[in-house]
Amino acid sequence: MKYPSHLLKVIQVLKRFPGVGMRSAERLAFNLLDWPEKELEEFCQIVRAIPQELKHCESCGCLTSEPACAFCTEPRQMNGYMCVIAHPRDAFAIEGTGEYKGLYHVLGGVLSPMEGINPDKLSLPLLKERIRTFQIREVIVALDSTLEGDATALYLKQELEPSGIHISRLAFGLPMGSTLDYVDGGTLARALSGRGRY
Amino acid sequence: MKYPSHLLKVIQVLKRFPGVGMRSAERLAFNLLDWPEKELEEFCQIVRAIPQELKHCESCGCLTSEPACAFCTEPRQMNGYMCVIAHPRDAFAIEGTGEYKGLYHVLGGVLSPMEGINPDKLSLPLLKERIRTFQIREVIVALDSTLEGDATALYLKQELEPSGIHISRLAFGLPMGSTLDYVDGGTLARALSGRGRY
Repeated sequence: MKYPSHLLKVIQVLKRFPGVGMRSAERLAFNLLDWPEKELEEFCQIVRAIPQELKHCESCGCLTSEPACAFCTEPRQMNGYMCVIAHPRDAFAIEGTGEYKGLYHVLGGVLSPMEGINPDKLSLPLLKERIRTFQIREVIVALDSTLEGDATALYLKQELEPSGIHISRLAFGLPMGSTLDYVDGGTLARALSGRGRY
Repeated sequence: MKYPSHLLKVIQVLKRFPGVGMRSAERLAFNLLDWPEKELEEFCQIVRAIPQELKHCESCGCLTSEPACAFCTEPRQMNGYMCVIAHPRDAFAIEGTGEYKGLYHVLGGVLSPMEGINPDKLSLPLLKERIRTFQIREVIVALDSTLEGDATALYLKQELEPSGIHISRLAFGLPMGSTLDYVDGGTLARALSGRGRY
């Protein structure tokens, strides 16, 4: 195909997004061609400002536009809960449930020797310090239910248990609205072993 | 959800892409946060340069990065074929087949009273002029097989027929690799009425 060279550049740069293959990138690129110059300009300003506008909170590691992190507020510091997450985006997912009102702590990833994420890449010393500072009573480990998530949760448990703190992890089981015949065996086994009194 | 204000801006601007809803925009936005500042800068430069770098050929209306349009070349001007398409992107789809080596003409859309695309929005006078200039023998109408595409094809036929030129339209029928029980009735009816000697 004789795509003009700049169109190829646009397609290539859009392919950097996750889940965007050649066909999707082409569709997005052709759409961009129809945007008025003013909107392209606005788009670029917003994208370019990301590093300046979106910082990580120095305390919890969550994303913040404002100098004061929205999660590190006074009432949350008082209730003794600390939710440990891998990435800043996880905090928004948990906030979306409306079920949690405690502090967060972003580990910065899960243990993955393949990707070079070793224990010293995780912000564990700061976590321990914050647990002491805010007199945390319960650490809720909210990591993915993957091999790496499991390994990281186990590592956290080993590191934090000596201090005598209560450590919990998100429950495993059937997703809401699921039917048994579409659930994989591993999930069903965890749902069975974790069954509760009804 | 307490998304920081700039993150909301990034999500909103990504939602302008077709087929990108809230969830996809969130995923793309969080991915952008992980891009190094240098890549963000490169991305913006490429997007911002679109209006300057990608022009429409003054003759055929196709996209071009170079001053000379890749499709409006000497050998193509000589072979007497003119393919009428709605959008510049359609030319790349047709080029992809490797089956066509003639000129293109971009109408700039299909007739659609609902969207305010009337006959005077289509580049019909230029099409007529180019047909004369290049002594075109056959006009191939390559428009969508939609209501609007059909109406535009009919309109083109009425406008061009008096000049005695040969007008053809892309064939309708079964897509390659399709099975009869998954093809809709309308397609099957067109495939039947357009059946060829085997």
